[in-house]
Amino acid sequence: MKPQVLKGFRDYLPADMLPRAELIGGIKAVFESFGFAPLDTPALEYSELLLGKYGAEGDKLLFRFQDNGERDVALRYDLTVPLARLLGANRDILPPFKRYHIAPVWRAEKPARGRFREFMQCDVDIVGVAERTADAEVIVTGMSALKRILGAHDSAEARAARGGTPGFTVRLSNRKLLNGLCAVLGVGDDKAVGLFRTLDKLDKQGREQVAALLSSEVGLDPSAIEKTFAYLDCQVTPKDLSRLEAFFGSVEVGHAGIAEVKEVVALIDEHGMGEYLAIDLSIARGLDYYTGSIYETTLNGLPGFGSVMSGGRYDKLLDMFTGSATPAVGISVGLDRLLAGLMELGLIKSRETPALALVTVFSNETRAYSTRVANTLREAGLSVEQFLQADKGLGKQFKYADRKQIPYVLIAGPDETSANVVKVKQLATGDERALKLSELGAWATTLQQGSHR
Amino acid sequence: MKPQVLKGFRDYLPADMLPRAELIGGIKAVFESFGFAPLDTPALEYSELLLGKYGAEGDKLLFRFQDNGERDVALRYDLTVPLARLLGANRDILPPFKRYHIAPVWRAEKPARGRFREFMQCDVDIVGVAERTADAEVIVTGMSALKRILGAHDSAEARAARGGTPGFTVRLSNRKLLNGLCAVLGVGDDKAVGLFRTLDKLDKQGREQVAALLSSEVGLDPSAIEKTFAYLDCQVTPKDLSRLEAFFGSVEVGHAGIAEVKEVVALIDEHGMGEYLAIDLSIARGLDYYTGSIYETTLNGLPGFGSVMSGGRYDKLLDMFTGSATPAVGISVGLDRLLAGLMELGLIKSRETPALALVTVFSNETRAYSTRVANTLREAGLSVEQFLQADKGLGKQFKYADRKQIPYVLIAGPDETSANVVKVKQLATGDERALKLSELGAWATTLQQGSHR
Repeated sequence: MKPQVLKGFRDYLPADMLPRAELIGGIKAVFESFGFAPLDTPALEYSELLLGKYGAEGDKLLFRFQDNGERDVALRYDLTVPLARLLGANRDILPPFKRYHIAPVWRAEKPARGRFREFMQCDVDIVGVAERTADAEVIVTGMSALKRILGAHDSAEARAARGGTPGFTVRLSNRKLLNGLCAVLGVGDDKAVGLFRTLDKLDKQGREQVAALLSSEVGLDPSAIEKTFAYLDCQVTPKDLSRLEAFFGSVEVGHAGIAEVKEVVALIDEHGMGEYLAIDLSIARGLDYYTGSIYETTLNGLPGFGSVMSGGRYDKLLDMFTGSATPAVGISVGLDRLLAGLMELGLIKSRETPALALVTVFSNETRAYSTRVANTLREAGLSVEQFLQADKGLGKQFKYADRKQIPYVLIAGPDETSANVVKVKQLATGDERALKLSELGAWATTLQQGSHR
Repeated sequence: MKPQVLKGFRDYLPADMLPRAELIGGIKAVFESFGFAPLDTPALEYSELLLGKYGAEGDKLLFRFQDNGERDVALRYDLTVPLARLLGANRDILPPFKRYHIAPVWRAEKPARGRFREFMQCDVDIVGVAERTADAEVIVTGMSALKRILGAHDSAEARAARGGTPGFTVRLSNRKLLNGLCAVLGVGDDKAVGLFRTLDKLDKQGREQVAALLSSEVGLDPSAIEKTFAYLDCQVTPKDLSRLEAFFGSVEVGHAGIAEVKEVVALIDEHGMGEYLAIDLSIARGLDYYTGSIYETTLNGLPGFGSVMSGGRYDKLLDMFTGSATPAVGISVGLDRLLAGLMELGLIKSRETPALALVTVFSNETRAYSTRVANTLREAGLSVEQFLQADKGLGKQFKYADRKQIPYVLIAGPDETSANVVKVKQLATGDERALKLSELGAWATTLQQGSHR
């Protein structure tokens, strides 16, 4: 039997999974520190609930099938539509509702470097708050998670080496700015989505190609294309949006967008996170359901890597499930892409096992003592592996520890057993010392704290 | 649009998800303390890898379909076959290999109380160790997880109230004992699986019904049925298997089973966990692939609730993937059933949010100060929600905290802002006191530690 993994899917072996679990733990801790509550929804939903929410392209990417009861079902494509469905099914949940959801989603996309058909999303959303305070809070929550995760990549030294840029930048825009652009161009709703999707390609395909697509795909005339680039070329910063104000002239929706951007900027400044923020007018976000703030996130020092955290405000999507006006805003950390980025940056220390110590076994007669040693260390909170095969000699057991990168080997042979001591050997240095059974707990505690897990 | 959840599936709202996440965290910590390393595999596998591994019934329960590339795929049914496939695909993994895997699995079973079509399994397995030390270690690992989770249900008081029984009992048997029974009965391989499945029903359907099925379904004659009950009625304990020895007479495989059981019992005693162990000859475990130790676990005080943790040794299953002899043994905690059991026992304290404090907002002018207060508490490790709508009065904000069971409300109005203090109100007692900004960190640390999260 050929033990094949499906195309676009992957196994996470311990060396990948240990840092991934650590990332998830850090993200979860930050999400909870902002008062977001966890929830989970089924992997499978009725197809009709998902269809039409992600554009025609999205529909084609669903893993959709008939189940044994002939229901038309599909694996979830994101965590946002399941949230909408959950709110529709639980009308007694009163807003404001702040939830986080860390779970895999499935999309039958063409696999590419860093793009999988199954990947983990880490979402926070605030439902029921129309104010910009919610936009700012989800962005600050995401920033806090990245700040915690990036650590050294965001240090003063690392910044200096990059010419002063922080570890990451959240690039902010607003759908109302894009609606203003449409008004300036005289482009109707029918062309708007195509326009937005084309702008989204600027990063990857460049100006010339985008200009060609604006003509051939969206049907803009040369003057409209020129205006589009005039919009993109407005040199704006979080502190100075004056060129954009001039661009919009009397187009009200554009000025409404500017006002929203200013509000979000001011609130993020209040959180002391302004240094991580930039304005990027080329951001469009493909998904149809956004209505206000939109944002993507670049890891500085990894040009062209793609966004590791993105989201926006979607004030209409939930209404069709809840039956009443339900504003909402969220952000999503792309865990697997972030992990790939951290690997490229050399920020991931990989390990084969969580065990920090291997307790050897000398013979079946001394095993009870080995067991006592291992359990004493475990009770002190240490991750410990006890070797299970007494017929393998000490040499093989040391080799095993070495291969699994377990830093300490503990020897509990007949001499140690009768003296109630353990010989502790640090593999990297060769240092060896004897510890009494009564000293093991304190040793384990020190070691565990030092491991920064 | 009707926001329906599929039959047999369920949402986990925060009140369900917070204790569930805590359970998972506790289980993960215990698994790692024994040196098991995490891994993850895709939710979808090629169907041919899963088919035939779970018996004819299991095949019918697969969520199986053609994907967009016309591949015959299925959602995983358990975590054991994916482990086998992973080992086949990664031949450089050298044994012993100790892994844990906490992930959902899918089975299109008839939904019933506590039985879902999507449920979380928490598995530890040891691959490459044929010795009974591995059987004992996975059992002790599971016991340690349950001991940690059950807490009060396993206390001296709770035991006394139940007539001395501990919080749970792992019931041990061995497939070689069942093979010995087949030898005594003269039952061949063709009938053996049917016999084992029928014995498995003893718990739920009782002796008379099982006797009828042994005749009608398995085709045993009255004398064989009598012998079967003589086997089940051997009164054995972990310390005394003499009646079973007498029953088997000269049937070697039966005595081999007894020897294995004795070894496992002795090793579990070495870990000081003997009090949680019993022998139960009626355990058969439906799955075809077990070859040695088998075990199930009862929550004492919840009769008829079904096993919350089970597994066994499967020394042949991996061979067909790895191409060489690959002994393995594992145990699986049924998280969702365990959670349901803990709820029935009243051992779950449900909360709506992780937040322990709500920081109110008085006006847009004082919000920056509220933000500072909230972030100071977060930096001290506290889960804090900041109210996001300044136009809602304090009364509404208090009501929100009350509804979400957030124990502390912090007031940061104009007076507090100018005095650099915060008013802290405990909702349950009505106690109120003022804290300086500089005192908030210490207050948060104390509160966080007291919450036992």
